[in-house]
Amino acid sequence: MSPAYTELLHRLKEVAALTSTAALLGWDQETMMPAKAGAARAEQLAVVSRLAHERATDPRIEELLGECESNGQLLADARIAANLREIRRDYDRARKLPAEFVGEMQETNSRALEAWKAARRDDDFSAFEPWLARQVTLNRRKAEYFGAPDGGELYDALLDEYEPGMTGKELERIFKPLREALAPLIAETTESPHQPDLAVRRLVVPPEKQKELNAFVVNRVGFDFDSGRIDVSVHPFSTGISPGDTRITTRYGDADFPEALGSTMHEAGHALYEQGLPRVEHWGQPLGESLGLGIHESQSRLWENHVGRSRAFWDWLMPLALRVLGSELDSYSSEDVYAAVNVVRPGLIRVESDEATYSLHVMLRFDLERSMLRGDLSPADLPGAWNERVRADLGLEVPSDAQGCLQDIHWSMGSIGYFPTYTLGSLYAAQFWEALCRDVGGVEDSLRSGDFRPVLTWLREKIHGHGRCYSASELCTSLTGTPLGHEPLLRHLRAKLDPIYRLDGQKTTP
Amino acid sequence: MSPAYTELLHRLKEVAALTSTAALLGWDQETMMPAKAGAARAEQLAVVSRLAHERATDPRIEELLGECESNGQLLADARIAANLREIRRDYDRARKLPAEFVGEMQETNSRALEAWKAARRDDDFSAFEPWLARQVTLNRRKAEYFGAPDGGELYDALLDEYEPGMTGKELERIFKPLREALAPLIAETTESPHQPDLAVRRLVVPPEKQKELNAFVVNRVGFDFDSGRIDVSVHPFSTGISPGDTRITTRYGDADFPEALGSTMHEAGHALYEQGLPRVEHWGQPLGESLGLGIHESQSRLWENHVGRSRAFWDWLMPLALRVLGSELDSYSSEDVYAAVNVVRPGLIRVESDEATYSLHVMLRFDLERSMLRGDLSPADLPGAWNERVRADLGLEVPSDAQGCLQDIHWSMGSIGYFPTYTLGSLYAAQFWEALCRDVGGVEDSLRSGDFRPVLTWLREKIHGHGRCYSASELCTSLTGTPLGHEPLLRHLRAKLDPIYRLDGQKTTP
Repeated sequence: MSPAYTELLHRLKEVAALTSTAALLGWDQETMMPAKAGAARAEQLAVVSRLAHERATDPRIEELLGECESNGQLLADARIAANLREIRRDYDRARKLPAEFVGEMQETNSRALEAWKAARRDDDFSAFEPWLARQVTLNRRKAEYFGAPDGGELYDALLDEYEPGMTGKELERIFKPLREALAPLIAETTESPHQPDLAVRRLVVPPEKQKELNAFVVNRVGFDFDSGRIDVSVHPFSTGISPGDTRITTRYGDADFPEALGSTMHEAGHALYEQGLPRVEHWGQPLGESLGLGIHESQSRLWENHVGRSRAFWDWLMPLALRVLGSELDSYSSEDVYAAVNVVRPGLIRVESDEATYSLHVMLRFDLERSMLRGDLSPADLPGAWNERVRADLGLEVPSDAQGCLQDIHWSMGSIGYFPTYTLGSLYAAQFWEALCRDVGGVEDSLRSGDFRPVLTWLREKIHGHGRCYSASELCTSLTGTPLGHEPLLRHLRAKLDPIYRLDGQKTTP
Repeated sequence: MSPAYTELLHRLKEVAALTSTAALLGWDQETMMPAKAGAARAEQLAVVSRLAHERATDPRIEELLGECESNGQLLADARIAANLREIRRDYDRARKLPAEFVGEMQETNSRALEAWKAARRDDDFSAFEPWLARQVTLNRRKAEYFGAPDGGELYDALLDEYEPGMTGKELERIFKPLREALAPLIAETTESPHQPDLAVRRLVVPPEKQKELNAFVVNRVGFDFDSGRIDVSVHPFSTGISPGDTRITTRYGDADFPEALGSTMHEAGHALYEQGLPRVEHWGQPLGESLGLGIHESQSRLWENHVGRSRAFWDWLMPLALRVLGSELDSYSSEDVYAAVNVVRPGLIRVESDEATYSLHVMLRFDLERSMLRGDLSPADLPGAWNERVRADLGLEVPSDAQGCLQDIHWSMGSIGYFPTYTLGSLYAAQFWEALCRDVGGVEDSLRSGDFRPVLTWLREKIHGHGRCYSASELCTSLTGTPLGHEPLLRHLRAKLDPIYRLDGQKTTP
């Protein structure tokens, strides 16, 4: 092995030790940290993150990279070549932002976050508006530092951070027909006289029992408790801290156990991806890291929606759930729960929305943030534009900005270009699922018998094991035979909803 | 404020952000971390600790310190002067160890720790002996780097790390009469026909109920749950991570709830000290830090033994404990529990020993480690010397090294000079308690009514609030009127044990 490559990997591991430490500080903050430790925690995170950034952008890395990139023997190994390509990508991106600009962004993010919290609480968009304007300006500068790709727009440079290689134009190509097909589907479901009975979701179930059920299920789907844990937090999340350490959280209400289980399945999907990455061998290297957020989200959506909202899954789980949750569940069949967890209910809040309407929430955010970045939409005009779009897409009136354009944290934290990855995740998931069912065969029977290994094995082999060796679009095309499109997701939704709502379904199926 | 002083404090805060992050990594490792994350955690700890050390020994600190030390205006403020004095002490000590020697120690510590674990498990001292020899050698070198104080011995240089200013000679002065007085006291108790009934300690109590009781008690004594938390770990500990973040752990058995409560009171004592330090204003500065380990241990011993093993405490707690733990407790009086938690039972294991015999365990370790450091005792001869001393002091035969000289982790981790601080803690606690009772008055009645504020207020005002402003010996003399001695601890034990065991007590009371 080349000494330059060895030193390079050593330095990346050191950076990973710091970024993973920051991840643990973040996890602890959400799950364990006492209330009064907030100020000290902010300081710890700032110092650790700064040191990680300093070391990731150390000019010595440039030297070592240069040496490796001119070493034919290294490049002859396709995986090493991929590793070097991605290390170069990360390094160049990190170096493009001047340190003082990074500082300005961090400072703005933390202040804008506080302003957003207060504005949402007080339903006062005007208090947040100057911060939003500032975040748009900073994101425009950030995009300029990165530079738009040839023939692209500034928005692409932001997207590239979350979904490498994706562009606004490409999203438009995929999202437009999706939106056009979702609108009639949702209208049909809401107008159908056949509506799922939601009584099972109102069953009161003690959180302790729900926890027991969720732990049982994630263990069964393949989550390794020797390499991770489940806790409770206000906002559920998953974090792949380090090799051997992937943690997820759930929140529990007194009722709606399928909701908490769905959330846990979602986070477990993220976690199964992290646990399946070759992180032990490649800690800190692209080969051991997840691809963009779209692929990450595809893993959560696949387990949440294609597994956890399937009829076969509930056929398997119901007798077991009955044993854990108690006899009140006895009056419901797996078909009842299956229908109840697939209900379509247009609502105002993205994170509470169902599988069918979810993408409409995402696409409106994509269009609005892209317009703001271009300067076509002034931040001051956001509420009006938001409410109009909700009316058009979901048929709802927005009664307050708190339930409208102030509901999400992302823009306050300076994240523009992040939202589309949620729907990309749903699209990848549906397309992967079709390929998986084709490749593996008998998947439904496996799920019905509680055997999730065929699914996980396929994902591990085809996706998890490769780290960042291939791009998301390469992976999609090579696994599914076609570039990412909206049809598989539509087919998936139609295949579920047409029978549940007894729809005709012919006119909009692609 | 002087710009040099401001920058100095800023740099110290940055170091504190890193050391506190390492503390969180350590806490998480003992309480939350998944099993397979060990290797990554070691890497995280190594990197964060190294960066903290690099920044703590940055020559810029020397420059700033120099400027401050020649600034008369700063030195005119006694607290700032004390802060500078202690910053100098820390900096000079840290600079005295060459970086490569620190690396060698860390490497040895982690390997010796693994060797010790295996040796203890296999009861095979010969497997640990070379590591012990190496640790003794390294400690001698470390002491040489630090340098013994004028007229002192190398051991003093090690002690100084844990108990600043303490010397082997001074320990000898205090320990000798203590040991001489404990021997007959313990003999009298074990020979007494009046032995406490230990049935209450065999009561089976579900850990969940014990947790509830312990949380109630520590909250009542003043532990602030908005600045801390209690968890479960294999080895109970307390860690003052950062301002607003002090965490303790307990371990629970199925029986002996007073044991778990005593352990929690002990850790809560440490935590109350940490929570009482002016850490918010002085994070990273000596003014916001605890004095040596002896004073820290005095706080845990005071709450564990002087409060938690007092008759008044159990008079208060019994009716409440009955409510939490259930009616099985009904057949015991507070006097029964009081006697049972003060039982004297010479045993082989330090951490299981009672208040009276505990110091004998400590003093034998002090004598043996000091002899090894001097070269008077070869590590190979440790088991023989150990067993002989246990026979002499505790009247017991050591059946295996696992229950003898291999029982403690300290030497394997390269900690020589640490053990004596346990008994210093007991001695300080007893001496402080006498002063507190004299200053405050009516303490017993307060405890009996469950009012712990007078005790905590005195400790906060006299000890916690001062950080490292005074040395331990200055503090002791100014609060109690006399230098540290063995008499208060002896009086305390006699006052309890003479009535419980119906001893004459006259002949050995000082």
